[in-house]
Order: sequence, then structure tokens, then C-alpha cells
Amino acid sequence: MKFTGHILDVLTDSVYPARITIAEGVFKEITPISVSEETKLDVDGIILPGFIDSHIHIESTMLTPAQFAKVAVMHGTTSVICDPHEIANVCGIDGIEFMIENANNVPFNFYFSAPSCVPATLFETSGAILSSEDIEFLLKKDEIVALGEMMNFPGVINGDEEVIKKLELARKYKKPIDGHAPLLSGEELDKYLKQDIVTDHECSSFTEAIEKKQKGMKIMVRDGSSAKNMEALFDFSQRIEYLRNQDSFGMIPPEVLERKIHSPIFDFIVSDDKHPTDLIEGHLNKSIKKAAELGVDIIKAIEMVTINPAMHYGLGVGSIVPGSKADFVVIDNLDDFNILKTYIAGECVFDGENVLFDVPEVDVENSIKTDKKTVDDFEIYFDGDECEVNIIECHDGELITTKSSANLEVVNGVVMPDVHEDILKISVVERYGGNRISNAFIKGFGLKKGAIASSVAHDSHNIIVIGYDSKMMAKAVNTIIENKGGLAIASEDFNESLSLPIAGLMSNDDAFDVASKLDTLHKMSYALGCKLGSPFMTMAFMALLVIPSLKISDLGLFDGDSFEFIEVIKNQGS
Amino acid sequence: MKFTGHILDVLTDSVYPARITIAEGVFKEITPISVSEETKLDVDGIILPGFIDSHIHIESTMLTPAQFAKVAVMHGTTSVICDPHEIANVCGIDGIEFMIENANNVPFNFYFSAPSCVPATLFETSGAILSSEDIEFLLKKDEIVALGEMMNFPGVINGDEEVIKKLELARKYKKPIDGHAPLLSGEELDKYLKQDIVTDHECSSFTEAIEKKQKGMKIMVRDGSSAKNMEALFDFSQRIEYLRNQDSFGMIPPEVLERKIHSPIFDFIVSDDKHPTDLIEGHLNKSIKKAAELGVDIIKAIEMVTINPAMHYGLGVGSIVPGSKADFVVIDNLDDFNILKTYIAGECVFDGENVLFDVPEVDVENSIKTDKKTVDDFEIYFDGDECEVNIIECHDGELITTKSSANLEVVNGVVMPDVHEDILKISVVERYGGNRISNAFIKGFGLKKGAIASSVAHDSHNIIVIGYDSKMMAKAVNTIIENKGGLAIASEDFNESLSLPIAGLMSNDDAFDVASKLDTLHKMSYALGCKLGSPFMTMAFMALLVIPSLKISDLGLFDGDSFEFIEVIKNQGS
Repeated sequence: MKFTGHILDVLTDSVYPARITIAEGVFKEITPISVSEETKLDVDGIILPGFIDSHIHIESTMLTPAQFAKVAVMHGTTSVICDPHEIANVCGIDGIEFMIENANNVPFNFYFSAPSCVPATLFETSGAILSSEDIEFLLKKDEIVALGEMMNFPGVINGDEEVIKKLELARKYKKPIDGHAPLLSGEELDKYLKQDIVTDHECSSFTEAIEKKQKGMKIMVRDGSSAKNMEALFDFSQRIEYLRNQDSFGMIPPEVLERKIHSPIFDFIVSDDKHPTDLIEGHLNKSIKKAAELGVDIIKAIEMVTINPAMHYGLGVGSIVPGSKADFVVIDNLDDFNILKTYIAGECVFDGENVLFDVPEVDVENSIKTDKKTVDDFEIYFDGDECEVNIIECHDGELITTKSSANLEVVNGVVMPDVHEDILKISVVERYGGNRISNAFIKGFGLKKGAIASSVAHDSHNIIVIGYDSKMMAKAVNTIIENKGGLAIASEDFNESLSLPIAGLMSNDDAFDVASKLDTLHKMSYALGCKLGSPFMTMAFMALLVIPSLKISDLGLFDGDSFEFIEVIKNQGS
Repeated sequence: MKFTGHILDVLTDSVYPARITIAEGVFKEITPISVSEETKLDVDGIILPGFIDSHIHIESTMLTPAQFAKVAVMHGTTSVICDPHEIANVCGIDGIEFMIENANNVPFNFYFSAPSCVPATLFETSGAILSSEDIEFLLKKDEIVALGEMMNFPGVINGDEEVIKKLELARKYKKPIDGHAPLLSGEELDKYLKQDIVTDHECSSFTEAIEKKQKGMKIMVRDGSSAKNMEALFDFSQRIEYLRNQDSFGMIPPEVLERKIHSPIFDFIVSDDKHPTDLIEGHLNKSIKKAAELGVDIIKAIEMVTINPAMHYGLGVGSIVPGSKADFVVIDNLDDFNILKTYIAGECVFDGENVLFDVPEVDVENSIKTDKKTVDDFEIYFDGDECEVNIIECHDGELITTKSSANLEVVNGVVMPDVHEDILKISVVERYGGNRISNAFIKGFGLKKGAIASSVAHDSHNIIVIGYDSKMMAKAVNTIIENKGGLAIASEDFNESLSLPIAGLMSNDDAFDVASKLDTLHKMSYALGCKLGSPFMTMAFMALLVIPSLKISDLGLFDGDSFEFIEVIKNQGS
């Protein structure tokens, strides 16, 4: 294949007209050509290297890797480094191998990291444990390009044996180690960094990111569905203030300082997680545009999703040079930034209207191994007229909860929720064969009736359910069990669901169908009185024990501050 | 060690005040501090990472590694990657091991590359051959961080078996491959690059460098004694023209374009070779200042000799971050750029006046294995009154020679040089035990009488001598033989020399003594009528057969265009 067009060259920070030759999926020759204003080039617009998302959990899209690829290429994405942390918690090595195999069905570059922290804690029942032996098995694979985000920073800092072993293995196999250390700072950060943990995608403030960068980390600026850190990290006035304040003695020539302000100090842009409803609207293409709007030089923003991650992880893509895999996108111009076409290994995979490859349906084993539930399973019993209970208090768009308490009425021995005070019931139904349930109370969801349930519940992905009455909670949970996983909403009037039969996390459908069903579920939850922007997502984090203050696992109510279980009913003296 | 000062941070492109803690030679903590204009910091000036010269042949300084270090630290250099190509041609593996061992005597970071092309050609007698087995032996060493400059680009392009084996070994041991491909372009360059050759330090024009950069090479901008490419590669108007011309369709926002002009497109600044007289005046400190004068943002220029090479070669130095070796320099300010102090591994090695370490004297075997010469050895005989000879025509400051011819008188059977036409004699005396001599004629040196000789003669370093009469040529050569190597100048009135007893390439003395003696020799050569700026250097390249058009080895007069030997006396029908 031979054609002419304007190339955006991330190696020389320039745009130039060239003749491009591609053979066997690889750029063979890139020859600059002379053009005048009358010259008609074969390709209108600008040719860019395909975009690379260097940190994403594909499971967050509720799509299979192949279905993810199908929508991602519409946005110019041609490579992702995904951490199959969610499916690993459900299915272990088998789940990771499923992801790799499924990814191989489509023309798209999937790279993987080996999930370093499965399970997240020992206070919950997960579907699998990844030992250091498992990690070694994974690190030997070519598809695995890194050790996945090391979330267990206390384990790193305190020298936990198994954690240290996993880090040593990454060094042994010369695979970079991804970090995850929200708010870690000072001496503790120094200790964490001694283990050669290089990246961090958890920075939520400029100050946090600058400290990590100054200490040698590569900063992934996150532009995801739940966490959006671009405004904070690219904040123009903060960058000016930072550079000028630091240089209060005027040591840098002023004109040099002025130009530095538009250069991002950080390294990559990543999504971390991306919900189907967001994903159909855009991916890194939207992030690049937004970075430019925030004052970052647009070529630098493009480099953050092309050459920078490609060099760090050694991917053999990311720039338009001879010898590199011929992954590229055509955009109209740098202002509008519309994706006109996407090519992978020299083949057009998106022509501006249609995606030019098919995705096979996946047939997998049912991962929901629990019996159908009855109303009784969701009741909390107490011998008396009233009792004081601990309550999880959640806040819209936040992973952190607060702990409160209330007195609740007891009717026929059953502790009753209080819909006027927005005190609902929350339960986690273990789904790995043990048939455990734990029940507690939660405030903040606003449901006036009915129940919502989901088999997406970080990180162990047991079934979580919230509702006013136990009957509807059982109905929603049983719908999920019938569907082999997914989301469900139940009321006296309706029983709607989104099936996620693949590990209880992913659908077989395409992004548009999944997004549309999720949208319907959201609208129904609002109809039931829910006040949260994204109720299923907020619910999914109510089981994430590592984020304080009060959470719930299948083993009980968990205090994330003291890192121990506590009673639902206070002073019961069990 | 704990102190406060302004840090120039190459990771965040900023200058900020901080408290620095160093222990065991490593930066432990870097804590930003708040200061007002009255605050007195412990360190005046700015603290920078120590400078790294990522491509230098130490032998070009005529100093041992240890003596080189002693002067380099005065200029803020703390690390070099040296290619011991010259000593390898003389002494093979033993020579390289000598360099490594000698380097270990001083507090300075010496890294080495494995010389890939020893000998340079098969048309000369060298002291050693480095086979692919030798290269494997070297690549296994920790001190060897790269495969040295692959000069044999025809061998790479044509798939020479031994060359390809060496390249494969570099990949096997995961050591980057340095390139050397002057003027290589188009498809031939593409073939060269297929072998994962990454760097190039031979670019002499912006156009050449841009092509290589666009094809994925990292460009070393050379600021050496013989080759100076900064003006061409950093040329401000060329960069403006390049960026504007390429973007003639106005695809990059104009303000972005404007800022890009001050960002160097290239990667490292290196010296390649540095003569003692230049080295005592400055090293990378001078190059940084010059780059800034040429319009490069000074912080970017600093990055080209700190973080950029450190990242490429994986050196563990190059930035002021916890965990990095505490190599740093203190300068007064970014305008004057005077080196106030230099530290290596947290220890002060230069206090602004004195270098704080000693250099042991080296005792080595004589590498000059040839008998003393007589006048007869330098005569060219012919049976007749006159003959036409081929003449090497050299040009000041250039490695390339041209080929010319002239008719010379024959007296008593001896072909006579012609001092009026500046046609002198040139001889190469083999010094590896074979006692060979080849004699020819050269134009351009301008000596009216006497002779100059040197055991520095690229790449095989036999003894080269130029002069009017054979008696003085023998005298100069015999002085070198007595001195176990070096430079010499002989006339009826004087016999001056600079001993280089270490492999015939390096002195035991310090940089100032060597520079001073070299200066004396230069002045004497001017007194004898020499018109060249640096006669010994120009002479040293008259034996470098790979550079056209006419050169000389111990085996005869060599035509670099046709790559074969030719007769000195034309039509002689030997």
C-alpha cells in the first residue's frame, strides 16, 4: 500500500507531507515530499499514530475485549494495556486467559498486565487468589507487558513477603511495574518507590502529581468515567503558579518559563475505567481535545497517548516510522479532531461510518454459583421493639463512605428500614458456591421502593443489592442468578435487567446495546426515587473494603478505618 | 549529608528550592521547601544533575581515563559512555580491560561500549581483531552498556555474517546498539535501521538529522574537537523554516508552532572526540551554553546531557530524584553557567579550585613493536630521471582527501619531493612486529623542512610520518619508538616530542601538561611552515581508509573510492 498525506510526527513534533509505504502490516518507507497549495494528496486531513490507552480495566466497559475494540477503533484507539484485575478476582488465571484469547479474535493491539493484588483483601470471598507462582506464570507470557497496579502499598512499605516476591519477579522478567498509590507521600512514598514501581494513575491534585513526578514516577493523567483528574493535573493557572513560584528567584529565563507552561509535565493520559455509556461518546480522542482546551500543546497531548506509552512499555507502535506496526488514524484537523478513519497493521478497521470487522459471540461457563434466594435471606432479626444500627452513608460520585447510626423499629422480630430517613437495606450475596449472605443498612440511595442489584461489585464481584423490601431484593438478585450475572432492577411494576453472563462482568452484546440497556436501568432507578447520578457504579464500590470508612462484604459489615468487621446492630453482644 | 538549595529538575522542567538528603552516595530525600527572598539557602546558585557525555573516545584526549576524569569534573561532567575503539585496535580485549581497570581508580562514572568494528578494514595491519566471540565476552560485562558505533554500514546493509552476529548478540544481551552512518539515507538507511541501530552522532546537516530522526533514530548532536555539528543541527532559522515549511498548510496552531522552535528536535549532545587543548577549556558545560546561544531552551539543552542519555542507556544517574546516584554540579546561574562545584556519589570531587582526588601513574607494556628506522626505509626508488606519482591532497579540518598527481624528479634513483609545490613524503610504519613501511606523497601540509610523526593514526594506529627529507622522518619516527609512542617533530635544530607510552595513544601526565606539550608541538610545526590548524590531527586521519578519496596504510596507498590499493608511481607496471 502506498499513499501520500500529512503526517503528524511525534518524533520531531511536526506535521509534514509524505509518501507512506506499508507492507506486511508495517510502515516500510516514509518519504517527505514537496507540495504546493495546489497539490492533491491521497489522504485529506492529518495522519496520526493510533492512540494507546496505557491503563484500562476492560471489564469496566461491560464489554468483551473484542466488543471493546469494535467501539474503540471508532475513536482512533488502536492499542490498550489492560489490567484484567476484575475477571481475575472472579475466574483467576482462566479469566485472564479468556481475555487474551478473546482479544485475539479482532484486529486490535491488546496488551495485558498481570493483576498484582487478587484478592484485594482477606475479608471477603473472591473467586480466585493469584499467588506469586501464578504471577510468574503470567509474566512469562509475551502478551503480559507489565506487573499490574500494585494497590497494596501497605504491603510494599511493610515488606509483605508475597508482595515483595511479585515485585522481584517483575524485575526478573524485565517487565515494568505499574503503581497505584492514592495520596501516598513523603517517606512512605519513598519506600514504595524503592521497589521500582514507576507509574501512578491515582493523582487527584497537581501537588500530589508533582511530588510523584519529582521523585521519578511517570504520571498517568486519568480521564475515566468515575475518576477525572485532567482538570486538576493540567490546570493552567496551577502550572503557571507552580513554575513561577518555584522559580521565585528568577533563575529560569522568563521566555523559557513562558513556553514551559504549555508543555505538560506529566506522561500519559489513561482512562482506567470507562463505562459503556461514556465509551460510545469517545475515548482518548476526547481526552486529547480536552487537554488542548486546558492549555496543553496539542502535539504534546497526542504524544501522551502515542509515543510516550509505546516507549515506556516497549510496544513497537506509537509513531509513524519505518519498522513500526502500521497503526494510524486520519483526523480532519487538530481543532475539530474528528476521527475519519482508523487503520491497524495497515488495514482499515473503521472507515468513518462502519467498523470493518466482526466479533464472535462468546460461550462461557456460568460463574454465578449460588442458589436462588428467598425473602428471609435478606432479613435482619432482633429480639425487641427497636435497635440501634450502624449505617453506611454513601455520597454521590465518591468511593469513600461515612459511618453513621440510627434507631430502627423492629416488627415481628425483623429490623425495618426507614424510607423517610432514606435508610435502606444492603446485602452482599456470595456467589462462589458458599451461599453466604450478609445484610446491613445504607443511607444515600434515595430509593422509595423496589431494589437494584449487580454482580459487578469491587473487587470480589459477589452480588450486591440495595432496596427497601426484602421481596424486591430477592427478585432482583434471582434475576441476576437466572441471567448468569449482570445488573437488575425490580419493583412491583417491572423487572428489568442487563445480562452480563461472562464472569458476571461482561456482556456478549455490542457497546451501543449495552449502553442503551444501562441507560434504561438508570432511568428506572430514577423513577424509583434514586438520587445518585450513577447508582449501579456507586453500589459496586460499596463492597470495596480498602476504601474507608464503612463497607460490606459477604462476610459482614467492614470498618475500613480500623480494618475489622463490626456488628450491624450495636451493642448486641453476639 | 543534608543541605538546602535550588534544584534544576529535569523531570518537571523547573527550578525549585529543596532540602536534599544524601546517604551512601545516593539521593535519599528531596523535599521542596518554602522560601522568601530573605531565606539563606546552604548552597548558592543552582544544583544540576552531573553531565553525561554519551559518546566519547577517551583516547582522543591523549589521557588515561583517570586523568580524563580529573579534568572533566572541573567542567561538571560526572559520567561518560566511552567507546574504547582506539585502544582496542592496538591491544584488543586487554586494552579494553585496561581502560575499565584504570577507570576504577577514580570517583567518576565510566561506562563503556563494546567496539563493534575492530579492525576498521582488512587493508591495514592492526594490533587486534575483535571477533563476535570477543564481543559476546564484552557484552556480558556490567561495565559495557552498549554495542559501540556500528561504522561498517555496508556490512550491515549487505548482511555480512560476522557483523550480523555482533548485532544479534547486542539484542541477546539487551544492550542498545550505537550507530555511525554519515550521509546514509533513503532505502540504505532503512536497511541499516532494521538492525535496531538506534543512535547516530554523524549528522552534519539539519536535513540529514531530520531524516534519521523521522525514521526513529536518536540523534547525538556532536560538539567535538574535529567535528562540530551544533551550528548545523540547532540552526534557529533552519528549525523555523523546517517547521513552517512542513506545516505549509497551517495544520499546527501558530502559537504551538512558535514554542516548538525552541525545543530541540534532537536527543543528546556528545563530544565524540576532544583534544587535550580543547578539553582544558571546557566540555559539555560549554556545549550547553552554546546550544542556548543558538536558541535552544537551556533546560532542554541540559536534558540532552543528563536525563536523556541516562534513560536511553539505563544509567541510574541523570536526575536529582530519591534513589538516583548523587552526582550533581553547582553552577552560579543559567546565563554565566560557571561550574562552582562537582559532586559524585555525594562526595565533592571539585571544589571550584581543586580536583579532590589523585590519579595513580600507570605502568604498561611497550606497544611499539618495531625496529628503529634508517633513512633508506623512507625512500621511494625509481629507475629514470622523472616519474608521475599519485598524490594525497589534504584539506585543513577535513577528513576527506582528494587525489591528484604530479611529475617528480629522480635523483640518484630516489624520487624527490617538491617543497615548492608542497609535495612532501608520507609514510606509515607498521608497529605490530612486522616491520613493514609504505611510502607515498602528500600535498597540503606546507612543511618547508623537518618532519612530524605520530603513533596516533586512525584506526590501526601504526606510526605515521610526514616530512621533506627522509633523515628527519627517520629521526621523528625513532623518537616515537624510543618514547614507546606519541607525537614527535624533528628538524636540524630541534627534536621535540610528546610521549604517549600507553598503547601509543595516551600519556601518564595530566591534561594541562599534555595540552601544553601539544601546544608546543603545534607552534613548532608552524615554525617549520605548516599551514594546517591541527597538523597532528589531520595527519592521524591520513591512515583512515574508510574515508575517501586517497589514504595510506602500512600496506600501501589506498583508493577509498574504488576500495583498493593503487601504485604510488603511475604506470610502473609492477
